[in-house]
Amino acid sequence: MSEQVTLTVDALGGDHAPGVVLDGVAAALAEDADLHIVLCGPADTVEPFCAEHERCRAVATTEFIAMDEHPANAVRKKKDSSLVVGCRLVKEGEASGFFSAGSTGACLAAATLVMGRIKGVSRPALCTVIPSPAKPVVMCDVGANADCKPEYLVQFAQMATIYMEQVIGVNEPKAALLNIGEEDTKGSAFAQEAFALLKEQVPNFVGNGEGNDILPGNYDIFVTDGFTGNVCLKTIEGTSKTLFKALKDIFYSSTVTKLGALTIKGGLKDLMAQVSPDTYGGAPLLGVKGACIVGHGSSNATAIKNGIHTTAKIVRTNVSEMIAETVLGGTSAKSAETADRVAAKAR
Amino acid sequence: MSEQVTLTVDALGGDHAPGVVLDGVAAALAEDADLHIVLCGPADTVEPFCAEHERCRAVATTEFIAMDEHPANAVRKKKDSSLVVGCRLVKEGEASGFFSAGSTGACLAAATLVMGRIKGVSRPALCTVIPSPAKPVVMCDVGANADCKPEYLVQFAQMATIYMEQVIGVNEPKAALLNIGEEDTKGSAFAQEAFALLKEQVPNFVGNGEGNDILPGNYDIFVTDGFTGNVCLKTIEGTSKTLFKALKDIFYSSTVTKLGALTIKGGLKDLMAQVSPDTYGGAPLLGVKGACIVGHGSSNATAIKNGIHTTAKIVRTNVSEMIAETVLGGTSAKSAETADRVAAKAR
Repeated sequence: MSEQVTLTVDALGGDHAPGVVLDGVAAALAEDADLHIVLCGPADTVEPFCAEHERCRAVATTEFIAMDEHPANAVRKKKDSSLVVGCRLVKEGEASGFFSAGSTGACLAAATLVMGRIKGVSRPALCTVIPSPAKPVVMCDVGANADCKPEYLVQFAQMATIYMEQVIGVNEPKAALLNIGEEDTKGSAFAQEAFALLKEQVPNFVGNGEGNDILPGNYDIFVTDGFTGNVCLKTIEGTSKTLFKALKDIFYSSTVTKLGALTIKGGLKDLMAQVSPDTYGGAPLLGVKGACIVGHGSSNATAIKNGIHTTAKIVRTNVSEMIAETVLGGTSAKSAETADRVAAKAR
Repeated sequence: MSEQVTLTVDALGGDHAPGVVLDGVAAALAEDADLHIVLCGPADTVEPFCAEHERCRAVATTEFIAMDEHPANAVRKKKDSSLVVGCRLVKEGEASGFFSAGSTGACLAAATLVMGRIKGVSRPALCTVIPSPAKPVVMCDVGANADCKPEYLVQFAQMATIYMEQVIGVNEPKAALLNIGEEDTKGSAFAQEAFALLKEQVPNFVGNGEGNDILPGNYDIFVTDGFTGNVCLKTIEGTSKTLFKALKDIFYSSTVTKLGALTIKGGLKDLMAQVSPDTYGGAPLLGVKGACIVGHGSSNATAIKNGIHTTAKIVRTNVSEMIAETVLGGTSAKSAETADRVAAKAR
């Protein structure tokens, strides 16, 4: 039996809400008998659903934050939106984590303004698993902070390390700075300053990594500012999508190629699943009090389900508590152990 | 008959030099009867080759700049290196352009320090064609300037527009700012400032583009700082490479898949060629006096040949002269025409 966990879910988050959200919640509840959901959204959506599902409580909300609204303004104004209420219930202790596939900007604003930062964290950061056929690679920040100071990247590395160890299950993750050259002295003034701080303060920091190191998984963690990280993440998505489309065109070009394509259909489907952002179902905003996961706007029910499971795992593995200890200068037992092992091996 | 053009080529540039360089020069000379090459490198390499090839003159050099040397220091110190001599001969008017597949940093330093900037150009920028299955997409800067001021991006857009029109042959190219959100107000402080300047000063600027707009070719030109551009370019390379490797593994997984793979082998080969950096053979450093193209370190003979052809085309289409006119406030006739057309259509 796992620890009992209660999460709030934004029924209106995502391009295909509420349909896929409800399906995802139902699937998550079915797979995890110790999971409880507080579903926030319009009464006529959440009440009938919760009446039919165990461990699911409806909280009716009357407002909605659209994708194109100014995030912080919308969060301040629409206090009875599903998104703000979801975060507030975490703040008030009625739930331990929050999941939404709604506007990333609004989720970040709501989590930061309503749930609040962990003491000592300069800037909460959006951390994502880059879906790679090689192995999971974590990038942080991928968009919460378009403008960063070099020192923020130290905490990004610390938080991503805890996430990778506890939630993704990768021990002793190697953290690299996303840069434009491998040598220690390469990069912009910002990157050079971040390099020096990371080297001094992050035991599992192994040096610079480049764009072509990401998908092959040459490092476990890539630390970067939210602008570069977001461009990078979307570039990977656009590149995969375009190449798969071009492949499909080749497959459909003649009867012979169609027959040939049948033989690799299974393998190709697996590969597409490996590089799909739906596998992990969302990106955690690390550094806020309580767990907050932001799903992809285009999430399907599986992505929603996986996002909810990841949120529960962040709560159960005490990620936020470990971040709080680490940024306050102490290090959690496990991180400290890892740090020692990595330091011993470091190049 | 084309215009007679003389180019200097660095016989020592690239991971597989001088072999592939000599093969590439021979192929380029064979395909372009109006091309003359001044081949710079060790006497025992360049002299026998030039003795056997028409329109090829040997200039013996005694020094070599390795990939790991500090670019500017190496260029200042090693005045008799193939790379520095190649640039000096352009400066002295013995040739109109220079090609090397050597260290990008050293090429940029040599071209900037020896050939010199065009009057009025703040920062020469490395411009590259992103190989896409959809259509050619140009990105500028991809690494010459890790640290940029927003105003540099105006000239990057102007120079890339001239390159795209004259050399790639795309009329009325749409230029976008690489950013993290489509709306005008999105992005870092740097991006927002660059957006305002581009909107004011670049007639074919159409707004923000994101990472996932690049490979699908949703815009013709992406303007960015050299740090983001370089990360982005390498991310595309790493993503393509990793996906093609994963595909290969699927193809080789059984006898049936091997047979299936045979049916799409041709199509796949074409696709891989479309996304290969060898197609265009190198990236021009725009904004220096005379043409300078930097080839990929891993260039094969075809890439070298294509790089030399591109260098010749830059010379023949007067790209540098047009850049000089544009940055001095005038606009070249063709650019002005384009500007009018694009402005008329702009969203």
